[in-house]
Amino acid sequence: MTIPHKAGGTRSERKHEAILDAAAALFLQHGYLGTSMDEVASRAAVSKQTVYAQFTSKDALFEAMVRRLTRAAGDKVQVGLGSPPDGMSLAAHLIGYAARQLEVVRTPALMQLRRLIIAEATRFPDLGRALYENGPGRAIAGLADVFAEWSAKGLLETPDPLAAASFFNWLIMGEPVNRAMMLGDEAVPDGAALERHAGEAVRIFMAAFAPAPSPD
Amino acid sequence: MTIPHKAGGTRSERKHEAILDAAAALFLQHGYLGTSMDEVASRAAVSKQTVYAQFTSKDALFEAMVRRLTRAAGDKVQVGLGSPPDGMSLAAHLIGYAARQLEVVRTPALMQLRRLIIAEATRFPDLGRALYENGPGRAIAGLADVFAEWSAKGLLETPDPLAAASFFNWLIMGEPVNRAMMLGDEAVPDGAALERHAGEAVRIFMAAFAPAPSPD
Repeated sequence: MTIPHKAGGTRSERKHEAILDAAAALFLQHGYLGTSMDEVASRAAVSKQTVYAQFTSKDALFEAMVRRLTRAAGDKVQVGLGSPPDGMSLAAHLIGYAARQLEVVRTPALMQLRRLIIAEATRFPDLGRALYENGPGRAIAGLADVFAEWSAKGLLETPDPLAAASFFNWLIMGEPVNRAMMLGDEAVPDGAALERHAGEAVRIFMAAFAPAPSPD
Repeated sequence: MTIPHKAGGTRSERKHEAILDAAAALFLQHGYLGTSMDEVASRAAVSKQTVYAQFTSKDALFEAMVRRLTRAAGDKVQVGLGSPPDGMSLAAHLIGYAARQLEVVRTPALMQLRRLIIAEATRFPDLGRALYENGPGRAIAGLADVFAEWSAKGLLETPDPLAAASFFNWLIMGEPVNRAMMLGDEAVPDGAALERHAGEAVRIFMAAFAPAPSPD
């Protein structure tokens, strides 16, 4: 490969993106083994040599594609939840957070990415870790921080903020995500049902972690 | 094919089982697309014609293999939990149940089956449904029955027993199953950690669903 001059650099970047877009579409639909580099090249309207020049191997392309989508998905995860605005109860604040988290399960491409990574967790263990760290791991760590802060202020009682955050996360996400994984995207409840679900999950959490009323 | 006589029938059944065993080993390790009928035949020590005579297609073999493992897994799921024995608290009874459910996540073949079905949920939607119905669906329905019964006796307060059962299930299974899906079997906590997890999950559940103390 020659070092690209300016205009070529831009074209090369455009090709790079086109290849990643094509790879995302094909891998998400057909899986790792069901997708060939020829198909990626054809869909991206570049030569196969260009694909290999940019990504060296199918494994490398798969990894680059998954990491790009995972980062994008991670950016949707709420971190740094912060304290409730004046006049809003902690429970109402948490319900709002839960509702925003649940939007993720209503994004079919993200559910398909999750299926794909689970499918390939043995072949690509690093990708499973990247998805976990950018997804539930990041959400749970962010929650644990605010739970610790709220506990210090006497608003919650979470002696183990990380464990409490994990239970909170799976109260919210457990059923919808796992139903979607096994039953497909049509099994995700509609918006009103997800709102009721979020409300009940927060009620359960607050019953277990709200500070005990003072004895006097 | 000729209709088998007695001795042939037995041999045919043995071959049938050998093919299913070979299919399970190969599909679980290499996935649907990564496994060929030639490899199944070779591993089962039968001819490829025999494989096709018994299962007609790779799809049919895959389905038969998954359904056999799913049924076997479903038999491990606790149903008809029953009431706690005399002198045992409801919480202690639920912790015992939770600990038994968690054994499932410590069975690598079952976690791999789950990964495989999630991977192929789009290609084989019926299999996702079968796994869901034999797995979480069955556990949750069984729990909902006893929660309704206990609520009628005043031991619990679950106005929606099915929703309560689903939250209970995912309090227990959410973190360990989803970590195992993405991070691999090594990410499953050890026995002592799973016991603490079960205890805390039941504490959260009881905080939310134990009957309110009577006002007098």
